[in-house]
Amino acid sequence: MTTDPVKLTQDLIRCPSVTPQEGGALVLLEALLSGAGFTCTRVDRGGVSNLFARWGTKGANKSFGFNGHTDVVPVGDEAAWTHGPFSGDIDEDGILWGRGATDMKSGVAAFAAAAVDFVKDTPPDGAIILAITGDEEGDAVDGTTALLDWMAESGEAMTDCLVGEPTCPETMGEMMKIGRRGSMTAWFEVTGVQGHSAYPHRAKNPLPAMARLMDRLASHELDQGTDHFDASTLAIVTIDTGNPASNVIPARTKATVNIRFNDTHSGASLTDWLKAEADKVAAEFGVGIEMKVKVSGEAFLTPPGALSELISRAVTAQTGVTPVLSTSGGTSDARFVKSHCPVVEFGLVGQTMHQVDERVPVKQIEELKAIYTRILRDYFA
Amino acid sequence: MTTDPVKLTQDLIRCPSVTPQEGGALVLLEALLSGAGFTCTRVDRGGVSNLFARWGTKGANKSFGFNGHTDVVPVGDEAAWTHGPFSGDIDEDGILWGRGATDMKSGVAAFAAAAVDFVKDTPPDGAIILAITGDEEGDAVDGTTALLDWMAESGEAMTDCLVGEPTCPETMGEMMKIGRRGSMTAWFEVTGVQGHSAYPHRAKNPLPAMARLMDRLASHELDQGTDHFDASTLAIVTIDTGNPASNVIPARTKATVNIRFNDTHSGASLTDWLKAEADKVAAEFGVGIEMKVKVSGEAFLTPPGALSELISRAVTAQTGVTPVLSTSGGTSDARFVKSHCPVVEFGLVGQTMHQVDERVPVKQIEELKAIYTRILRDYFA
Ligand SMILES: [Zn+2]
Ligand SMILES: [Zn+2]
Repeated sequence: MTTDPVKLTQDLIRCPSVTPQEGGALVLLEALLSGAGFTCTRVDRGGVSNLFARWGTKGANKSFGFNGHTDVVPVGDEAAWTHGPFSGDIDEDGILWGRGATDMKSGVAAFAAAAVDFVKDTPPDGAIILAITGDEEGDAVDGTTALLDWMAESGEAMTDCLVGEPTCPETMGEMMKIGRRGSMTAWFEVTGVQGHSAYPHRAKNPLPAMARLMDRLASHELDQGTDHFDASTLAIVTIDTGNPASNVIPARTKATVNIRFNDTHSGASLTDWLKAEADKVAAEFGVGIEMKVKVSGEAFLTPPGALSELISRAVTAQTGVTPVLSTSGGTSDARFVKSHCPVVEFGLVGQTMHQVDERVPVKQIEELKAIYTRILRDYFA
Repeated sequence: MTTDPVKLTQDLIRCPSVTPQEGGALVLLEALLSGAGFTCTRVDRGGVSNLFARWGTKGANKSFGFNGHTDVVPVGDEAAWTHGPFSGDIDEDGILWGRGATDMKSGVAAFAAAAVDFVKDTPPDGAIILAITGDEEGDAVDGTTALLDWMAESGEAMTDCLVGEPTCPETMGEMMKIGRRGSMTAWFEVTGVQGHSAYPHRAKNPLPAMARLMDRLASHELDQGTDHFDASTLAIVTIDTGNPASNVIPARTKATVNIRFNDTHSGASLTDWLKAEADKVAAEFGVGIEMKVKVSGEAFLTPPGALSELISRAVTAQTGVTPVLSTSGGTSDARFVKSHCPVVEFGLVGQTMHQVDERVPVKQIEELKAIYTRILRDYFA
């Protein structure tokens, strides 16, 4: 008897695990995995629940990991849903409805079902690890990070890891993710001396300096992109002064800049560059320029290699589609796993994620389980 | 018996002629001037009172004009005044207190007293015209402009004109004004296409275009000044976007620019320049740029010559001080008189004008009458 990933997805959707609630989802998975011979450990931290499960021996030579999350974003306007957000209904067209249908209870169900059946049918020479968090959609401070911290302390390790997030824009199999751009925001405040527009020599207008600085930043080419990343981009998102009087030169003005950067930069290198440009303009204009910076995430890349080729072969064998190796899109927990081992993301089509009426064709869940099974088979072959 | 300009200033201050109220001030002057042989005409328009007075024949070869106003700005916090704002008190130090003490009931009293005594003592071969408005501090739409319109219709003309506004910053006699810079304000709105900071190629950010445009405008040298004017100046007074989200590229942003310009420019020539710069940047960045412009006043100059030399000689003879020929400061009705005949402004020290406790040493009013008398004597000599 095989494990049905569709039924498992339904069961998980019926657990109301809106982040950071566990909602019964990890309890359900722990029961399934324990029953299949996995050693399970609940790694809870900061009020967040996480589940570590390993089949095979600790410290095995080869250890394939799956990473995913059971928490989901809030349902939004519940009345607007065609089927209840926690119903897990399957309609006559074979569509499964509910929060988490694509992001990513289906992905967790697919890799859990694949792993459970695989170890039963063809016990591998190595380990399979499932690192499942209940805090990906929230702060993500005590989620995958807590699992990785605990693993490091406990001598647990993955040789390679696949994150089961939805990665395909429209068609099953068309895209995997091998990295992400970094993101940072910088806030500038230029300070001069207030005065009357008729006597600008008695004032020190901060606005020409701000205009020059923003022009320099926006017209600078950060890079031309790499083999795996688009060119880094800088967007001025706002400049504000709030001076209603046309006969007054204001004392200060502010601006915000957002940068999406590839792995030719780091948050630190870009901070240095921004600071140098600000200092240069401050000196040229004789004004003060303050800068604050927040780096939301560094760029990272798992260079194409054995892991991405393994996944690519499995996807193509199952779907006939060759997946593109992409670094586009927002953040995921792959940014944390990256420091632990090579990591690639592959999952189903994510079109309705985070929306009302989130849903997925059951066929895609079955295909995803089949792909994950091929990956395990080839990995341990 | 001579006419006392100090007593006349007191009488005028006691008329509560807060703009646009006549307050009895023009009635008082009309009585004085009629009694001295002046032909008086009340030129009232749009609810504003003005007084035209001529001694001598209409269409005389030589006609010296004085221009001034009897309306005053509001008193502000009346309780804060040391002496009542309409008291016209003279304290033991010889200081005359009240609204209009410097701006410019003293100036009107000085030229009225000078004119009345001059025509009695030495009737000139020519005409003396007093064009006194009750609307300089208000909209100035129906004030000196109404007088000049009426004069043109009636065949009345001044050969030269002296505006009796306070022109000296600190010391009696140190400055006359032979022109003023123009002033204009331009409002820009740059429109692009909103989008996500992570995908700037799908949006069209208006901010880099705004930064470039403002940088170009602010770093452009309009001119290097002239013999009589400082260099024209441009001040960016505000740039505003109001976008609070650092992951959003905004659709539009606004900016305001104020220009103070000398007579190498006009409102129209600067509007053309601004429009051309905006169009250039709009084309470079593929954004839309809308511009609105308001010209508050054109630059004007009465080049140094007979009139300013006449005034300079009289001032120096009376005070020992040689007046600087300046084009600094805000607007006055000289901007209207300029189209009628050569015009120069000269009056006493204006330090307390528009303030609580506006006041003037009586000695300055007496000196001013003496200077105006010398001017009349030399003009008709
Ligand atoms: Zn997710
Ligand atoms: Zn005035």
